[in-house]
Amino acid sequence: MTKDRLRTGVIGLGFFGGRHARIHAELPNTRLVAVSDIDAALGGDIARRLGADFHADYHALLARDDIDAVSICTPDRCHVEPAVAAAAAGKAVLLEKPMAHSAREAERIARAVEEAGVRLMVGHILRFDPRYVQLYAAADPATLGDPVHLRAKRNAIREVAQRLGAESSILFYMGVHDVDAMQWICRSPITRVYAQKAEKVATGNENALYAVVNFANGAIGMLDYSWSWPNGLPAGYWAAFEVVGTGSAAWLDVRDQGFQVVTDDGPRGADTHLWPEVNDRIVGDLRDEILHFADAVLNGRSFVQPWGEALQAVRVLDALRESAESGAPVDVATPDHQ
Amino acid sequence: MTKDRLRTGVIGLGFFGGRHARIHAELPNTRLVAVSDIDAALGGDIARRLGADFHADYHALLARDDIDAVSICTPDRCHVEPAVAAAAAGKAVLLEKPMAHSAREAERIARAVEEAGVRLMVGHILRFDPRYVQLYAAADPATLGDPVHLRAKRNAIREVAQRLGAESSILFYMGVHDVDAMQWICRSPITRVYAQKAEKVATGNENALYAVVNFANGAIGMLDYSWSWPNGLPAGYWAAFEVVGTGSAAWLDVRDQGFQVVTDDGPRGADTHLWPEVNDRIVGDLRDEILHFADAVLNGRSFVQPWGEALQAVRVLDALRESAESGAPVDVATPDHQ
Amino acid sequence: MTKDRLRTGVIGLGFFGGRHARIHAELPNTRLVAVSDIDAALGGDIARRLGADFHADYHALLARDDIDAVSICTPDRCHVEPAVAAAAAGKAVLLEKPMAHSAREAERIARAVEEAGVRLMVGHILRFDPRYVQLYAAADPATLGDPVHLRAKRNAIREVAQRLGAESSILFYMGVHDVDAMQWICRSPITRVYAQKAEKVATGNENALYAVVNFANGAIGMLDYSWSWPNGLPAGYWAAFEVVGTGSAAWLDVRDQGFQVVTDDGPRGADTHLWPEVNDRIVGDLRDEILHFADAVLNGRSFVQPWGEALQAVRVLDALRESAESGAPVDVATPDHQ
Amino acid sequence: MTKDRLRTGVIGLGFFGGRHARIHAELPNTRLVAVSDIDAALGGDIARRLGADFHADYHALLARDDIDAVSICTPDRCHVEPAVAAAAAGKAVLLEKPMAHSAREAERIARAVEEAGVRLMVGHILRFDPRYVQLYAAADPATLGDPVHLRAKRNAIREVAQRLGAESSILFYMGVHDVDAMQWICRSPITRVYAQKAEKVATGNENALYAVVNFANGAIGMLDYSWSWPNGLPAGYWAAFEVVGTGSAAWLDVRDQGFQVVTDDGPRGADTHLWPEVNDRIVGDLRDEILHFADAVLNGRSFVQPWGEALQAVRVLDALRESAESGAPVDVATPDHQ
Repeated sequence: MTKDRLRTGVIGLGFFGGRHARIHAELPNTRLVAVSDIDAALGGDIARRLGADFHADYHALLARDDIDAVSICTPDRCHVEPAVAAAAAGKAVLLEKPMAHSAREAERIARAVEEAGVRLMVGHILRFDPRYVQLYAAADPATLGDPVHLRAKRNAIREVAQRLGAESSILFYMGVHDVDAMQWICRSPITRVYAQKAEKVATGNENALYAVVNFANGAIGMLDYSWSWPNGLPAGYWAAFEVVGTGSAAWLDVRDQGFQVVTDDGPRGADTHLWPEVNDRIVGDLRDEILHFADAVLNGRSFVQPWGEALQAVRVLDALRESAESGAPVDVATPDHQ
Repeated sequence: MTKDRLRTGVIGLGFFGGRHARIHAELPNTRLVAVSDIDAALGGDIARRLGADFHADYHALLARDDIDAVSICTPDRCHVEPAVAAAAAGKAVLLEKPMAHSAREAERIARAVEEAGVRLMVGHILRFDPRYVQLYAAADPATLGDPVHLRAKRNAIREVAQRLGAESSILFYMGVHDVDAMQWICRSPITRVYAQKAEKVATGNENALYAVVNFANGAIGMLDYSWSWPNGLPAGYWAAFEVVGTGSAAWLDVRDQGFQVVTDDGPRGADTHLWPEVNDRIVGDLRDEILHFADAVLNGRSFVQPWGEALQAVRVLDALRESAESGAPVDVATPDHQ
Repeated sequence: MTKDRLRTGVIGLGFFGGRHARIHAELPNTRLVAVSDIDAALGGDIARRLGADFHADYHALLARDDIDAVSICTPDRCHVEPAVAAAAAGKAVLLEKPMAHSAREAERIARAVEEAGVRLMVGHILRFDPRYVQLYAAADPATLGDPVHLRAKRNAIREVAQRLGAESSILFYMGVHDVDAMQWICRSPITRVYAQKAEKVATGNENALYAVVNFANGAIGMLDYSWSWPNGLPAGYWAAFEVVGTGSAAWLDVRDQGFQVVTDDGPRGADTHLWPEVNDRIVGDLRDEILHFADAVLNGRSFVQPWGEALQAVRVLDALRESAESGAPVDVATPDHQ
Repeated sequence: MTKDRLRTGVIGLGFFGGRHARIHAELPNTRLVAVSDIDAALGGDIARRLGADFHADYHALLARDDIDAVSICTPDRCHVEPAVAAAAAGKAVLLEKPMAHSAREAERIARAVEEAGVRLMVGHILRFDPRYVQLYAAADPATLGDPVHLRAKRNAIREVAQRLGAESSILFYMGVHDVDAMQWICRSPITRVYAQKAEKVATGNENALYAVVNFANGAIGMLDYSWSWPNGLPAGYWAAFEVVGTGSAAWLDVRDQGFQVVTDDGPRGADTHLWPEVNDRIVGDLRDEILHFADAVLNGRSFVQPWGEALQAVRVLDALRESAESGAPVDVATPDHQ
């Protein structure tokens, strides 16, 4: 392509899809052409505000030849159908994470994309977060040496778990971030996992999952997932990551972002990185992710993450789920893609 | 203008100018045409790497009619000449802060811009920082009520003071950020100042300046400036801001950005907001400032900050300098622009 | 004295007096003999629980010859009478800070103590706080070099200001801590002050006072006082201190003490230093202050702080009050005691 | 006993023993009579400075009838012999943690103490730390509800691992703190463990051990142990603890204690809780632990922790060691003492 702007559509207009649509409409290198959602009232309203067309059926959106690429932001368990259809329609695809809700499903998408010869990027947003990207840089073997142990934490308030109910799971909604980050930053695949879960707060799903994992290069890892924190946790979530190597170490903590509003009811944190609104536009990691996607498609550059790594993250999630159910360690097959 | 990309030049290629040039070359809505610096070796090298032309004399750059706008990043005390020349040449101007090194000089630039009828934006980067912008939003009277007291801190390591020597001053290099932020967030001009300074560490200029200020709306303010911290201060600087109102309060602290590298020598912080490099491109506040400048010029939208506010900040700096020298409180004239 | 336990009484049983009484009853080197308060119900109850006698009139308590020493914890403005009476009765005196509510009053107490030849210690609790004491140690000239600038912050929620009303003031209730700490850590007296105050939240007194001060040794200082924060400020207060010298620097921040309770309503900090209750006893700074007082009286050792320093702190408070009212800088007389 | 001071001895004068001896000499309710160490030069010197007698052979110290109680601070692996001998000599015993280096050894001490009818307290210092004790209080079922998940972190710099070499292990030197805290705060024993370890930095022992555990009450737990951090980690260690329950949650982080010294080489944290020196005396948790021990022995009060809980912690450590070696989950026997 040699255009200045990528012509785009967005399928699924929930929490993430609404933001994707707005960013597609705001960026200088994209032009939002159409949106689609099963909720026609919601979708029509967003389309009007952003100056785009609305299609109740996403197949109609995919059939248009004035659209080069689509963001797919349907619920976690509903990724396969639209992703396969978009590939068949020859669109470049930006698919929200997780790639799919099982390795088997993710492989269906992989095959469709390979057969159609279209480009696929999975929206692993941490690859665009200055904190995680700098941690990745700090973990370069020239500086870090050989990684010894890595810890990842992603905890959220119970309101999130109650809202998502059975639509997703702690592993697929939150855990995919850190499983991918672990393998990316450690520069080695996870080969064995052991997990335990607890369920005491009534949220319709597990409350917490703790896991110890092994990497092919001999490092050990720890995954700390919870979405059962009381709703008063500042900013609503707490993520952290650390890696200690034979040479140096690096860590991050994204809970306190250095900004608080204080009322008589207490303090309230803020998002200064993911998708804050600044001067009437969404900025931050998600904006930069979509800007990168558009730029790479327009100019034929490679994506920062090949989709094979997103697929491998799903394989680890499958193993974690199995271990938490069986109570026994589970081995993970090594990567076969890219 | 109805182009997709703004054709730009950069004058002055030091710490800031080098970053401006690179961002002009990387953004989807700008095209870097030429750069200029008195150091031909440095300038030629940057031009080559970014695929732009080099002009040893900035007047040659300004004479080109394939350039719509320029970033002026010369040292603080050398803003007037290139800014006046750029205005005379009809270019839109993005001028690095502070607008000038005295109110008298800033007024010369203001007159030149008004006479030429060109657009001028002063690079007050905090207007693009998600932390400060959210603090500004939190200080909306509907939420905050009437502001009671505001505190701003900007402290840096002595290496900075030693490097800049007599080229700048603590007030004009660092202080302009917070004087502008104070008046912006308080939504009221500073009317009276009292300052004291200290000079004990040999840096060729003052080490610290402490001031108490009054606002037209009755609030009080405190300015805490230092560039005499030992060089081991993590991240090299420490900025903070807080506002307490009759209804609520908000604060930020940008010292610990939640990311650290640890070696046997100690921890080392990181910049995750100003101009971090992510996936081979500069992202963050400075990139967003230039993106906004280009977008506003291309599409005829207003800048987030009118230059009259930048001029008023310089008037307060003049008063602070005078008070620190005389040891007596100094009154400040109220704004007359925009 | 060569006893193992100091026989003590407590006069005034409010927030601080109640804690003093309990600590006198719990420590291994004190024995609480009697307590006194104008509220007979409150006082009688405390006396019963702690196994001590109660006197409605503190003169009766002072008349007992089985009491060696007294804690005086009456409201700030009511220190002179009981302190002078205790001195006349020959008791060793532990007087809660501030020494008095004006330099003139403090000097009356000083004269009474000198005439009676009794020991006096003013309860400047920061002299027993491991954070401030280590900061004092870090500011030793051998390490710090010559001090350049010092900043002290003490901010509290508006509930405190509303509760104390006209009984105290921001300077005398909170400010005395930092004025004393400034002169102690800087190892030099404050010689000039300039202050401004604001009053917009209805608390019956000023909301905030900001000041810039000069030290005899050429350092500059900044005082940041407020008790107008919304009540949701975690832990209810925020204190900080920093000193930058020609050689090194040190700082402390006592707001986040590393412990939080989180409910659906938000986080809630905790006191882990001042007077936390651990295993059914009060521990921390206040306990250590009283333990030191008893030990020094029993064994004829000197107090960590001579009372002349407490008197000088009150002189600076007087000057700050005057400056905040007049709007002009005020000079402070240099110390004449000890 | 009805004395005012407990007459004490200290056996083993290393890092902890030296501090014990000094505190025994400084407290108002103890009197240090004698010390013992295999290093006669070191021991003689400490004895002289503290005004106590020195015995090269600890049996001679235990044979004295002017000693009521002893602190045993020998290396981890050398607890059994002196503890059994002290019990046989009828002394009250304050034994540094861990109780012993295996459950079998700990049980030998337990039998000796029960047979001799002497009092034994194991020095689990976290039981005296205001942060952990307040976390324990916050985890009261009336507030916390039913515990869902608990996480404990204890990480130190590699210098510690290199210094201790084969004398101790990550589990017994550091891990015992958190295993005890977990069972204490969760109010339920650990029944199953799974652990993995890594060894890449040459320290003569494992670098890190990560574990997932199960509690009898259905909660899950995570243990994060490392002593392979680069030596520049501020304060040299990083401990954290969190518990999330069905009603509320609480956490602590003891890494940043709110006090830093900054030089050109970087920041340096400080200990403000464990055993800081304030006004020439050791204060903090260790002092309070010994004060409690002396008070409880003198006055016949119970210790805050029965030794059966210290024994159970050792059983969990045994299981963690076994799991890390076998790679399989290991069950833990439930408590049988007290």
